[in-house]
Formats: sequence, C-alpha cells, structure tokens
Amino acid sequence: MKVPKGFFFSGIHAGIKKSKKLDVGLVYSDSTLESVCFFTENKVKAAPLILDEKKLLWNKSKIRAIIVNSGNANCFTGVKGIKDAQDICKRTARILGLESRDVLMASTGIIGKRLPMTKILPKLPYLACSLHKDATLFSGAILTTDTFCKVSSKVVSQGRNKIRILGVAKGAGMIYPKLKQATMLGFIFTDANLSKNLLQTACQRAVDVSFNSITVDGCTSTNDSVFILASKRASEKPMTKKDKNFKKFFKALESVCIDLAKKIVQDAEGASKFIKITTKAASEEEAKKACNAIANSNLFKTALYGQSPNWGRIIQALGQAGISVKENVSLKASTLKKKHIEIMVDLKRGRHSWTVYTCDLTPEYIRINAEYS
Amino acid sequence: MKVPKGFFFSGIHAGIKKSKKLDVGLVYSDSTLESVCFFTENKVKAAPLILDEKKLLWNKSKIRAIIVNSGNANCFTGVKGIKDAQDICKRTARILGLESRDVLMASTGIIGKRLPMTKILPKLPYLACSLHKDATLFSGAILTTDTFCKVSSKVVSQGRNKIRILGVAKGAGMIYPKLKQATMLGFIFTDANLSKNLLQTACQRAVDVSFNSITVDGCTSTNDSVFILASKRASEKPMTKKDKNFKKFFKALESVCIDLAKKIVQDAEGASKFIKITTKAASEEEAKKACNAIANSNLFKTALYGQSPNWGRIIQALGQAGISVKENVSLKASTLKKKHIEIMVDLKRGRHSWTVYTCDLTPEYIRINAEYS
Repeated sequence: MKVPKGFFFSGIHAGIKKSKKLDVGLVYSDSTLESVCFFTENKVKAAPLILDEKKLLWNKSKIRAIIVNSGNANCFTGVKGIKDAQDICKRTARILGLESRDVLMASTGIIGKRLPMTKILPKLPYLACSLHKDATLFSGAILTTDTFCKVSSKVVSQGRNKIRILGVAKGAGMIYPKLKQATMLGFIFTDANLSKNLLQTACQRAVDVSFNSITVDGCTSTNDSVFILASKRASEKPMTKKDKNFKKFFKALESVCIDLAKKIVQDAEGASKFIKITTKAASEEEAKKACNAIANSNLFKTALYGQSPNWGRIIQALGQAGISVKENVSLKASTLKKKHIEIMVDLKRGRHSWTVYTCDLTPEYIRINAEYS
Repeated sequence: MKVPKGFFFSGIHAGIKKSKKLDVGLVYSDSTLESVCFFTENKVKAAPLILDEKKLLWNKSKIRAIIVNSGNANCFTGVKGIKDAQDICKRTARILGLESRDVLMASTGIIGKRLPMTKILPKLPYLACSLHKDATLFSGAILTTDTFCKVSSKVVSQGRNKIRILGVAKGAGMIYPKLKQATMLGFIFTDANLSKNLLQTACQRAVDVSFNSITVDGCTSTNDSVFILASKRASEKPMTKKDKNFKKFFKALESVCIDLAKKIVQDAEGASKFIKITTKAASEEEAKKACNAIANSNLFKTALYGQSPNWGRIIQALGQAGISVKENVSLKASTLKKKHIEIMVDLKRGRHSWTVYTCDLTPEYIRINAEYS
C-alpha cells in the first residue's frame, strides 16, 4: 500500500454494529488539501452529505479530515440527525486542533435510525491518537455487507519525484451510483501537486467511467459520496494541464477509480458473476443508456445467474432504454460458464462506446436483503 | 362466465410449447366491432404488434378476429417474423371468410425465435371450426408461466337490456406495462353499443388505473397489448356520454380491468406477497412516479419477502423517483406477515393519489427466470 505523503488513517469498533467489526474510521492530513467531492443525485440525502455540501460551498479554508461511520446511514433522521453529524465533526475538529468546517463526514448503513452518539463520541480521542500511515483499519471501518476491503493504488513518476494515488471504497448493495458531478463511499488520496481546477477536470471523467458506471441493483443510495483529496506534497512545482506527467497522472487516477469500482461489483451482495457490458452507439450518452438498461434488468441478471443465453432479454431492455433500436443490433458474449462474462452490444449507429460493470441477480442477494434490518 | 353477444372463442395445442399445454387461441365476432387497442411503449416491438398497428391505422373496415399464440413472442425475428405473422393472419382470414386486414395477431413467449409455422398453420381450420361461446380454452391458450387463467366479467343493466363485459389476460413475468395510450396481453370483450370515441374515453382511464398500474419486475415487454372490442349488440340505441348507464358501464369496465391486473400480480413469477401501494402527492403524475419507484425497487421487494420493516428503502426509492421529497413524509403499512400487504405513503404535498399493485422479489422468481429459455 503506497500511502501518499501527508495522509494518516485510523479505525475502531465503537459499537454501531452489533458484531465486533470496525465501524468508525478517520482520515487526517497534516497539511492543506485540494479537494473535489461528488455526492448522490438521490433527492433524499443523508445528514452528513447535507453538512458536507454546505462546508464545501462556504469553506475558504481547506478540508483537513473526514470522519466515517458504517452500520448507520444517518439518513431520514431530521434535524436531530444533522445535529448528531455536526457534534461529531465539532468534537473531532477540537481534538485535531482544526475548525469544525475543516472536517467532513460520511455514513453508510441502515436508513432512518439515529446514530448511537454515546458510543461514538468517547472513541474520537482514540481515533485521533492512533492515526498512522496505513489505511488498513480505515478501509475496514467503512464496510457494511462487503466481504473484503477495497483498496487500490498506483505510483506515477514525475521526473525525480513520485506521485502516489491511494483509493479506498465500500459497496455491496443499494449500488447504482449517480454522482451529481458522481455515488457509494469512495476515497481517493494523492500527493500530486495540482490546482483545484485541474484536479476537478481529472476527477470528473475518472468518476464517470468508474463509480458512475457500475450497478448492483439499480438502487441509487442516499449516502453515496466520493472524496478526492490531494496533499500536493509530491513535488514543489504544481502540474499544469500541458505537463506530460498530467496525462500519466490522469490515467493512473482513472485506473485506481475503475479498479475500486470493479471491486465493488466483484463483492456485490450475493453475486456469482462479474459482468462487463460494452455498447457501441451514436453517442457516449446513448451507449451509456443502453449499458444501464441492460445492467439494471432483473430478467437479464437472472438469465446470467442461470447461465442461460436468453438474448431476447437484452433486446427487451434496449427497447426500454429510451434510445432508438433497429433489428440489425449485434450481440456477442463470452462463455456464460465462467465467473467473468463480457457482453458486447453494437447498436450499429456509430462508434461511440461505453462500458458498465454489473453482476447477476441471485437467491443469495434476496436472502441478504430480506434479512438486513 | 357471461360472454358478451357476438363473440366466439377457441383454443388448441399446436406444439409451440414443448409441454402439452394450449398455445394457440382464436377469438371471432360474427358482426362488426368497435375496437380500441393499446400497445407497448418498448421501442422494440414484436412482429404482430407492428402489423396490428398498421391495420388499425389503415383499416376502413373493422376488426373481426384476433389470433393469439403463446410460447413464442415472434419478436426480433426481422422481416421473416413479419411475414410469418402476415401468413397466419391471411390464412385465418381466408378460413373465416374475412379480409386479412380484419384479423389482428398477438404473441407472447421467448424473444428472438421464429414461429414454428408448420405446426401452427395446419391447426387454423380446427380453431375456426371449434369456435364457441365459452372463453375457457382461449383463456388457457394465451398463458406462458402463468399458473392460472385470468378471467373477469361484469353485467350492467341498461333499462331492459344487459351489457356484458368479459376480460381475459395473461401475465407472470416481464411485467411493467407502459401502454402508449397502455402493456401484457389483455382482451376485453363487451356487447355495449357505443361509439369508438366514447369507447376510447372509457378505456384510456380504465387501462391507466389497471394494466398501466402494475409491475412485477420493472421490465416493459416487447409484446404487451390490450384489445378492447365492442360488438354493440346489447341494445339498439347507442349509449351517449350523458347516458346515466355510461357511468355504470365505465365503472364496470374499470373494475374488470383492475380485477385482471390484480390477478396478473397475484400470479407473478415466484411472488409470495401481493402488495398494494397508494401514495398521496401534489398531482396524480407525482403520486404515480412515487408508486412506481417503490414498486420497482429490488431492495423494497426483498425486504417485504423477508417481512422486514426496512422503511428506509421506501425513502431511498422516493428520493430516486424524480420528485420532491421532504422529511415529513408519512408511511403506514398493514402487517407484513399476511399475504396481502397495503402500503400508504403520504408525501404531504397534496391530496392527489395513485395506486400501484406489485409483488415481492423471491428466490423462486430467480429460479423461474434462470431456467426459462
């Protein structure tokens, strides 16, 4: 794990989850960060997201820390839920010697229940004391029904310097990210030195082709957030758009995001198949609509669970996608027996393509979600 | 079964299905009909629908018969599929002494396979010879994964006369009807005497609150069609909109359509629960969006399968519905232990309401659809 310069992590079991698993994590930077954040398009937004959006609008100073809990979404919890998130940020800031506005928060878990504040608040000093240069505990503390930690990293050389990129994410269910400008929990840390504008440019595309291109169940969460933070410590001189290293950095960032997004799908609730769907169409927008319509079809997903080449279901889904479909559509698929399946759909309307990652729909998905609350 | 005057039915096993079940049905009227037909909004339309739409546009004469097959959708079968449907209509017309344009066709079953013409064509004479005033065989011949025949009827008195309404439908899976002006297969026969315009007025609303208000899996079929046919034989004088009996007729038509739509949901693939969702909102359109977002959420549907009161999933679905959602939303539900569950959602934005019927998502749905082709 190549941790970018300036970042420190911790994680603990505070007791939000009934199991003994980690459920609160903290990330802290010892210097000012550039940040670009993406939040869910769901009209119902969890309390921490409402607060984060305000802080990112107002904030003349820069974000320095993010406190994250799993096991409870702090969503649909009213003004009390907002107050809870505020209190946690305030207390965390005080312990770290920061202003409350410098601390963001993210939550994931069940909707409609208050956070157990008496369990969380007393653990904050320990989280601050135990910060260190390893993201393992942090990557575990953000998980819910996930079965493994999702971490991805890259190192890009920039002359004699090295730029490090580290990504950490969680997924599993209620996964169909539509992040306004990106949705689930994703954290990308880098020490690249670049302006906020340039970071924004790099992130938008990286988030679109990764987190915004996966679906488990077509359900867009109330809590999806991606935080991309740059400590700018890799070099003294900032990168510019013309810099030959920027393209390398951008490719590496995109690759870390796609790697994390794929891991989310690989660990999707109950999934037995990892499915990559690529479409060719008249525009990227049209190709994207075609991909999502197929990837969100229960009938398609159950057919692949059954390893049944029922291609009519792809055609049915395309017809419901809000795009033009002719009978000369071509379909190709790798063998359905393997765990990884690739589907290629050419609408014969042009060469613009898009790729979406999804999984099959299985009895195990139903068992997990029938028993969740 | 109160069969309206003028209608005759038959059904046979032609061999489209591997099982010995009925798979071709015919309905015939011995006099001119008024007809209002609704076809799927799916951009991929099966061959018989393409032909039917043309006939209904051109046709100066009136529809007199519908030939229906199950076990094969005749969809995504190209010009050959169109030719197959044409040949079946032509042959049926010749046997019945009609023009080909007077005969409509409907198909349901697997997508992407040609019809077994050599099995179907030789059976058409028998279908014509065996026409009689009982729709039992016809109602069986249109089924696919359905486990029971869906029939509903009403009799309305109009002075000394009686108006009969008989509805026959099939459903089970790939059910999320969006009929352009209505989707699955539905046939409503009546002997009411009324103009095409008045029939259209009555049907539009009846189809909207029934077939257009159900979902099994959010998958809008390529073959959904509703045919509403009036033989006008119940009385000598046509009904007018001001006629006090028109309201009674309209209510009876609506009730037959809702009854059939509910039967489709009751027989939904693998379902263990019948769920009625009613929402109150600022407009009918908003209430409808709220209903559909909840009814199509896999997470909501699995929670109900698990009898788990995970209301956060209703909130999540509302937030994804493309409508405004405030935190004062109120939710009520009947006990989750019974087979019939009622959910009431008040968005606190007005008194306009809508009702949608759906079912839970179960391991059995997956088993059925994993093995279908």
